[in-house]
Amino acid sequence: MGLIVQKFGGTSVADAERIHRAAKRAIAAKEKGNQVVVVVSAMGDATDDLIALAKQICADPPKREMDQLLATGEQVTIALMAMALHSQGHQAISFTGGQIGLVTDNAFSKARIQSINKQRIFEQLSEGKIVIIAGFQGVTPDGHFTTLGRGGSNATLVAIGAVLSADVCENYTDVDGIYTADPRIVKNARKIDRISYDEMLELSGLGASVLQTRAVEFAKKYNVPLHVRNSQNDNEGTWIVAETPNMEHILVSGAALKKDLTRVTIKSVPDRPGIAAKIFGDIAAANIVVDDIIQNVMDDNTAHISFTVEHGDLQDIKPVVDRLCTELGARTAPIYHGDLAKVSVVGVGMRAHTGVAQRMFKALADGHINIQNITTSEIKISCIIDREQGNMAIQIVHDAFELEKVK
Amino acid sequence: MGLIVQKFGGTSVADAERIHRAAKRAIAAKEKGNQVVVVVSAMGDATDDLIALAKQICADPPKREMDQLLATGEQVTIALMAMALHSQGHQAISFTGGQIGLVTDNAFSKARIQSINKQRIFEQLSEGKIVIIAGFQGVTPDGHFTTLGRGGSNATLVAIGAVLSADVCENYTDVDGIYTADPRIVKNARKIDRISYDEMLELSGLGASVLQTRAVEFAKKYNVPLHVRNSQNDNEGTWIVAETPNMEHILVSGAALKKDLTRVTIKSVPDRPGIAAKIFGDIAAANIVVDDIIQNVMDDNTAHISFTVEHGDLQDIKPVVDRLCTELGARTAPIYHGDLAKVSVVGVGMRAHTGVAQRMFKALADGHINIQNITTSEIKISCIIDREQGNMAIQIVHDAFELEKVK
Repeated sequence: MGLIVQKFGGTSVADAERIHRAAKRAIAAKEKGNQVVVVVSAMGDATDDLIALAKQICADPPKREMDQLLATGEQVTIALMAMALHSQGHQAISFTGGQIGLVTDNAFSKARIQSINKQRIFEQLSEGKIVIIAGFQGVTPDGHFTTLGRGGSNATLVAIGAVLSADVCENYTDVDGIYTADPRIVKNARKIDRISYDEMLELSGLGASVLQTRAVEFAKKYNVPLHVRNSQNDNEGTWIVAETPNMEHILVSGAALKKDLTRVTIKSVPDRPGIAAKIFGDIAAANIVVDDIIQNVMDDNTAHISFTVEHGDLQDIKPVVDRLCTELGARTAPIYHGDLAKVSVVGVGMRAHTGVAQRMFKALADGHINIQNITTSEIKISCIIDREQGNMAIQIVHDAFELEKVK
Repeated sequence: MGLIVQKFGGTSVADAERIHRAAKRAIAAKEKGNQVVVVVSAMGDATDDLIALAKQICADPPKREMDQLLATGEQVTIALMAMALHSQGHQAISFTGGQIGLVTDNAFSKARIQSINKQRIFEQLSEGKIVIIAGFQGVTPDGHFTTLGRGGSNATLVAIGAVLSADVCENYTDVDGIYTADPRIVKNARKIDRISYDEMLELSGLGASVLQTRAVEFAKKYNVPLHVRNSQNDNEGTWIVAETPNMEHILVSGAALKKDLTRVTIKSVPDRPGIAAKIFGDIAAANIVVDDIIQNVMDDNTAHISFTVEHGDLQDIKPVVDRLCTELGARTAPIYHGDLAKVSVVGVGMRAHTGVAQRMFKALADGHINIQNITTSEIKISCIIDREQGNMAIQIVHDAFELEKVK
């Protein structure tokens, strides 16, 4: 007996039948004696449809109005979910973000949660109701609607779990959990039973799309256990939890592949303080997300600065970089190297064990894969390679660490 | 220069192009130096689509959740309308009912407006913005979403006009205004230029569907001039205003026809106090709306009570009436007479002039139309006739009072 927060994403509530199925899960948890809160996304493609409608009307819609528009998507789902529970004989009440005082800053389209009025939720739970909450949305202190940006419903899930001190946040998706690698590429990829917040953060940052970085950060901060599960079956999924000492026995928990990267190299710029800040400040101002950064200092007191961006950003970044090279007095033109990929391994065991990097590099070398750049964090090693060798590389790395085997 | 509240119904905002056209009207009013507030309905069939979705999920949805669902319809339109104004180079801001503190009672699905926070609207107007407000919706003092029932967007229009002391409330529809009779039946029906609140109230009650009784009552109470106009052209429509002395020169302003009525007669019930209250109390409890009531006292201290209902309600009312006859000790079974119609004329001039009723009865008699019942109010005369003579009767009455001519 406890308090469970369940979240159903867009595909799990895409039509009447799926909404009823999700309702059944909430009821099952309730009938086991739990208090149940349900967070839902907009139905299927509802958000995309609203965006398309807005674009028909206005090429550049004001963000406040866009949020006013998009907030309706989840409001539709919460009402329908409450109706589904009602028709299955259970008491339920739905709340928009505003109705539970989910207050955010006023950064429309990517607002951050500031507070939640948990009292209203507890009142309804104590009356025996299942409480349905709209994901992805909140209100500013002045009552303007906001949305939380990509993965916002997961942010809502974790924030609600945190303020209610939930025993678990269940994230229902269309996959069985987090895998050791993308199972569409690595056929013997294995579902991970337990993974630490930090490992999940690295994997999310590497593009494992089930959970966004922000939701995991929040879960870590408030120590909310997350359980990623498949809404189509009753299997145990992946638990994302605080690190425990025995996790260190596992050197590598998962591997990830990011494709379609382009490397930009600015050569021979004066090696003086503030150069990197200038470069990446200007790039951030252009709203381009930089992946990895590699800087080397040369003998002649100049620096080579490389970084990777998604290939789709190349057109936007070129004018910025060309201007920067002129301004900084770079001796040569910038170099753009497309068709790259990044293969990474993640594991908290790296902190305590040596040899992980060497084992990865050797496996890639044995597979005749040339490593162009290396970047590491405490619990992650990434190698930039040719894009066309990406799928092969992740399989090789997966095999090298025997990720298909339960440790 | 003044303050104008414009309202666009569902057909006037059914798609991106129409929303842009409605936006142009708001801009035109603004550019004449007015402050402009726009009230909008849900787009086209959006509300019906949401109801259909709810019915797929739950045969009998809780009304609170239904209102939570339906309130999204207008929220979509306000955001899109604000975007349309933005893309046409004008500043605008959209508000849901809740965002302007449009507080209602908690009668979900048919809530009544209690108060509106006009300050928020005036703040935005004074910054030069066009203010867009969602029709049909409000919030309870506790923050639950409510809807205002049929014609709710018109109620919003008039309530906003009243609290802002607007110079005019413009109601944009798909017709040119209020007609002397339904132009689909009476070919020479004429658009009325000015009509009093009271006359409009009678016509609304008789089924002229452009404006609901409630909105007109509200406009009368707060003396808000209403201008019913066509959103597809720039013609002057019909002004609905307080009665002025010169209106009395016009004996009859309009005629109306209500079809598909059934008359129920309860014969020979004891003529004692409280009988009518009992009968119509029980019928109201069954949620059936009674049209006209006619009661005669017989010589033997029993009463005949007749009333008309819409034919569609007959099945629901039969068991109620049959039970009532038994309970009240009626000496004979109730009589149900279907296939009736009601033809009515309305005009404030009746108050000061005699002969209107006689002129109507004579015209119908000359047309060989038998009058089965007559009911009157201060400014209305209604005759119950055979349904199949309805269309002919309204044309005859229209001709008798020469309604096609401008007086």
